[in-house]
This record gives sequence, structure tokens and C-alpha cells, in this order.
Amino acid sequence: EHPYIQAEIDGFTVDFVPCFKLESADKVVSSVDRTPFHTLYVKSRITEKTKNEVRLLKRFMRGIGTYGAEIKIGGFSGYLCEILILYYKSFVNLLTAASDWRKQEIIDLEGYYTNREEDARKLFQEPLIVVDPVDKSRNVASAVKEERLSEFIAAARQFLKNPSLRFFYPEPVKPLPIEEIIRTMDARGTSLVFLKTVAVRAVPDVLWGQLYRSQRAIAKTIRRYGFSLLRDDVWSDEKTAIVFVFELHSRFLPTVEKHLGPPVRKREDCERFLTKHLGSNLTLSGPRIEGDRWVVERKRRFTDVVELLKTNLENEASNTGIASQISKAFLSQLEVWVNHEVKHFYLTNPSFALFLTEYLRGKPRWLQ
Amino acid sequence: EHPYIQAEIDGFTVDFVPCFKLESADKVVSSVDRTPFHTLYVKSRITEKTKNEVRLLKRFMRGIGTYGAEIKIGGFSGYLCEILILYYKSFVNLLTAASDWRKQEIIDLEGYYTNREEDARKLFQEPLIVVDPVDKSRNVASAVKEERLSEFIAAARQFLKNPSLRFFYPEPVKPLPIEEIIRTMDARGTSLVFLKTVAVRAVPDVLWGQLYRSQRAIAKTIRRYGFSLLRDDVWSDEKTAIVFVFELHSRFLPTVEKHLGPPVRKREDCERFLTKHLGSNLTLSGPRIEGDRWVVERKRRFTDVVELLKTNLENEASNTGIASQISKAFLSQLEVWVNHEVKHFYLTNPSFALFLTEYLRGKPRWLQ
Repeated sequence: EHPYIQAEIDGFTVDFVPCFKLESADKVVSSVDRTPFHTLYVKSRITEKTKNEVRLLKRFMRGIGTYGAEIKIGGFSGYLCEILILYYKSFVNLLTAASDWRKQEIIDLEGYYTNREEDARKLFQEPLIVVDPVDKSRNVASAVKEERLSEFIAAARQFLKNPSLRFFYPEPVKPLPIEEIIRTMDARGTSLVFLKTVAVRAVPDVLWGQLYRSQRAIAKTIRRYGFSLLRDDVWSDEKTAIVFVFELHSRFLPTVEKHLGPPVRKREDCERFLTKHLGSNLTLSGPRIEGDRWVVERKRRFTDVVELLKTNLENEASNTGIASQISKAFLSQLEVWVNHEVKHFYLTNPSFALFLTEYLRGKPRWLQ
Repeated sequence: EHPYIQAEIDGFTVDFVPCFKLESADKVVSSVDRTPFHTLYVKSRITEKTKNEVRLLKRFMRGIGTYGAEIKIGGFSGYLCEILILYYKSFVNLLTAASDWRKQEIIDLEGYYTNREEDARKLFQEPLIVVDPVDKSRNVASAVKEERLSEFIAAARQFLKNPSLRFFYPEPVKPLPIEEIIRTMDARGTSLVFLKTVAVRAVPDVLWGQLYRSQRAIAKTIRRYGFSLLRDDVWSDEKTAIVFVFELHSRFLPTVEKHLGPPVRKREDCERFLTKHLGSNLTLSGPRIEGDRWVVERKRRFTDVVELLKTNLENEASNTGIASQISKAFLSQLEVWVNHEVKHFYLTNPSFALFLTEYLRGKPRWLQ
């Protein structure tokens, strides 16, 4: 969206981001034009003591995985952390308050919406509302996903109950030995379906936007064809590979599928339904009447989710909802692995091995 | 409910049913006291011509399987057929009208509810409302189940489009050879689970009331434990045996089961949830946060529906919703067969063989 220069200086990566110099923050032309006002606002109010509280909070956020407004995380930005500390004065005060945050909690440092809370809730639809002190029409927490917010609240309670350094510096995860991974998969008894393709060239925010959108679209397709989806996730090292994970009750469904027809009272719809299904070679039994409507049991189009996914992803036109670059990636490479078949990739890609280990553990690292 | 004598006279079974002799039908003491008034009403209005129309209708109803108000059928009584003909004058007129019957159609021969149709719909909640000419507070069609009504409507349309003797005298069903039954089951790819027990001593209306109630209760249990139920049915010869049929996507489910916990905002519920599942040996992964709530993946209690059913039915206390006599029957005998295992019973019980053949065909005999 915005042009900028990235440079390496003394071992640090530094972004130079140009913006318009404005008189007031409510006259923004590009979205980064607010930044100097944010800096000014925080600098003029922060003290040496609160600086340390901010540092504590940011490290806590990073430790529990809720730090960063980028699409991949959908968490709390640095500026948001600063505003929260200015409002609650200290890290522990914030955690105590957050433990009891309600749906659409409003944090309004400058009191723009005092006695007009309902207006704020209507204007900002997001799960957490932190009114920007320099622009009352903006929610500083607009990037915070419900899940990250919930994790922060839950971690805050756990920390207050039982404070520990591990919230700030979680123990590094070690990938499980492949035998352990296979044992765990077998114990679950599900079908873990992995879709692997090549990485696409895009900045991280664009890449992860496309990955999450594609994940939702594929999950929807899987459900639409009658499969029971237990959990899904996506991994990418952003450079070489992408792997989507879909965990199903079973990769297979029975041949027969019950198809609901029209209510008997809809005379013409019934006529069409009977004409279509009577004597069709897809009909396995029926049509018959159940309650007040026609139903038919017919042959299912896809009884194996692997066949469904291959057919869908190898045919560009049918990739409804899948982001265009991801769709193209699938056309150039698509590997489908079920359960044990992930072994080779697991053994050769440590970052993916970490991801799958955490997936199977399925528990935040701070939770004990 | 009502005492009566059954006798064999000249090869006919005759029921002698005592009742109170009353001045007027709205002073009924027992439910059969209305019968003499019904007889009087019909006799005084029926002609030689309409008698034949009634006979046509009754034979049609029997042919398509909607004749009889007994619990097993839930269809149209003889008196109801007579009232319908008195109202519509002829068999074909009735079929033409029925083809366009709407939800809660009102047939009110004496016009008790003229311009008060909404009162009638509130008083009678059933899918078809035929006001009793001799007692305006009674719906003659109260025993007609939605499914039988829908079948009658659908058959009426088909008959008018393409009249045929088979509506009155359907071709007798021949049980399929067992090899064909097994082939059909295999082609469906489902798990057909048969629960067989001994017949219970009860008059048919009581027996079928108990059978249908038990069928619903068992189906509910199967669904509650997460199995996908496609179709269910029940058969009995009323003398020796009862067989319930439950057809599932699969008799097996994976070990892992996703269990939804409380929303993160409910602080105390979360506390309890975490205490219960953290470190429980039933927990396979998690707890973790999904959206705004805790979830956990844990070991499923029953991964095989056969085990679920045996455990439930062989333990009287847990048979919630199953009729008491059926529950007792299961305690004295319970055989569970899946797919091919029904073979022996199929080969030795022609009435059951007919039932299963029709089940697998799943299509009304009049529908071609």
C-alpha cells in the first residue's frame, strides 16, 4: 500500500517510511500520517517509570503471542500497548482490569465518548475499542482479532494467579521425534490432510491475508461437501513453502448422501424434483417423503476428501474464494499428504516441524 | 383404554365395543360414545353413488398406505374418508382439491368456523383440520401424521396425472435375494445397525406407541454421542420379534472429540473448565482458545456405536426415553447386527425380509 525503504544499519533492520507533514491528525492523507502525532502524544505524557511498564507489557505480549498488528498475528501494536499503559498506569493494573474486560470494552483516554458509549460501540464494531487520542474516529485496537484479545485476557488472569517468567520468555518448543508425531496422530484417530504448495512472492501482510482467506475458503468447500472438519490451520516460512492443514473426522464419507427436496406443498418444485431424481442413475434409493418434504438418497460426488481437494485446486475456475496468488501456486504445485505421509517434509523442514508439534499440543505455551 | 370383546364369526373378526347411549354428541363420557352419532350422521347423508366414492377412496388409501387411524399407520380413519367424500362429493374431486391443500387446510362440513378460520387453527394444532360435524370441538383428522398427509397429497397428484390400478392394488413386494441385499448395503457404504429383541405383550396401539417412542429416544442418544444418523426405522410382527434399524455414516468415530468450553469472558466458568481439563488423562490436546471461547480436544467416550448401544440398552437406568416394556425386552434379549450380520434373520423371517427390501428401495410403491 505504502512505499518505504528497508535498510540494514549496524545489524538492525530499519524501515524509512515517508509521510505527509500535517497541521492536525484528523487531516490525514495516507494512513502513516498519524504516526508523528502518535509519537508526539506518547512522548509528551510518558515518564521513566511508565516507559518500563510499557516494556514489560510488550515483552509479555510477545511472550504469549499477541504482540503485533500485522495480519499474521492480528494482535496488539506498539502504540496500542503505550496507550493501554497511559490509561491503566501500570502493567499489573492493566492485567487486573483486562481480566474483567467485557464484550466491546471501551478505553477512551481523552474521554471523547463519555456518556456516549453506545455511539462508540456502533461506530467501532471490533471486539476491543481503544479510541485514538489524536483522532477520535479511529480505533487503535481495530487490528486485534477476537482470538488474540481472548488469549490476552486469559493469560492476564493466569499470570496474576501464578506469576512466572515463562509468560515473558516461554521455553522454546522442541519438535517431537517423528515416531512421537505418528503415535499422536494415530491416537487421535482423525485424518490430518496436508496441502503443500510453493510460497508466493508478496509482502507478509499480503501473503498472510491471502493464506487466511484461502484457508477459510477451502474449509468451507470441505464442509459444503459433507465432511466433518475438526480443526484447520496454515503454515508458511514466507520464502519457500506453504502448508494448509485440515483435520477431519475421516477423509472418507459413505457413498450414499441424503438430499433434501422441496416441501410437498410446493407442487411445481415437487414435479421438477421427481422428474430429476426418479430413474436418475445417481439415485440409490427413493425419492420418498419424510415429514412434509421429499427426500432422495443419491450417490455422493466425492467420497474421499483428497479427490475433492485435488479436483478443486487443480482446476482454477472452481477455486471460489481462494486468493488468486495461492490459487496459481496450487496450479504449479500441489502435494496432498494424509497423516503419516507428512513424514518426509516434517523431517526436512524444522520450522514446519515446530508448527506441527505445537498444533498437536494445541495448548498455549503459558498455560500450565 | 376401552374394554371390548373380539370374536370370530363366519371367518370375520368382529369387535363388540360397548358405549354410553347419549342425547347429544357433545356430552361424551368415553371416546367411543361419539360413534353412534357418526354413524347416524353419515347414514342420513350418504347416497348409493357416494357410497361407491367412499369405497374407492378407502381402497386408494389402503393401496398407498395411508389408511387407518391406528398408531402404527397414523393415517385416515374410515369416518374421515366418509366426511371427505361428503364434503368433496366425489373421489376425483377430493384428489384434485387435496393436490393443492395448504398447511392446516380446514374442512368444515357444517360451517362451524366460517369466518373464524384462525380460531380453528389455534384450537387444532394438527397438519390437517377436519371439523367433526357432530362435535365442533373435535378434529376428525387429529390422528393423521404430517408424513401420511404428505403422502396422500403427493399420491393424489400422481394419480390424477397418470391414473393406474396400482394405486389401489400395488404389486406385492418380493423380498430380494440375500446376495442382492448385501450388494445394496455395500453400495450405500453406510453402517446399518440392527437392534433385535423379543416382542412385548401389548395391544397394537400400545405396542407401536412404545416402538416409535423408543426409536426416537435411541436416535437421540446416537446423535447426542456425535454419530451421523442417516435414517432409522422399526419393524415388528407384533408376536415374536422387534427390530430397530439405525443407518449411520459410519459405526465408528475418531477417538478425538472437540469439546466447547465457556466464553473467555465468563471468568469463573473458565476457571472450572481449566481445572477440569488441564492434566486430565482424557485430554488429547489443549485446552486452547478458539475465537472467544475455550475448547479442548479429549477422548471420546464411545468410538463404536455398537458399544454405545449395548452399554445403554443393557443398563436399564440409562435408557432415558425408551418405553418401559421395550426397555425390559432389551434386558432379556438384545442382539446387535451390523450390515451383513443381519443375514440369518433375513433368511428366516419373510416379514422382516419384506420390510428390509422396502427400506432399501426407500420409495413409495405407487411412485414410478
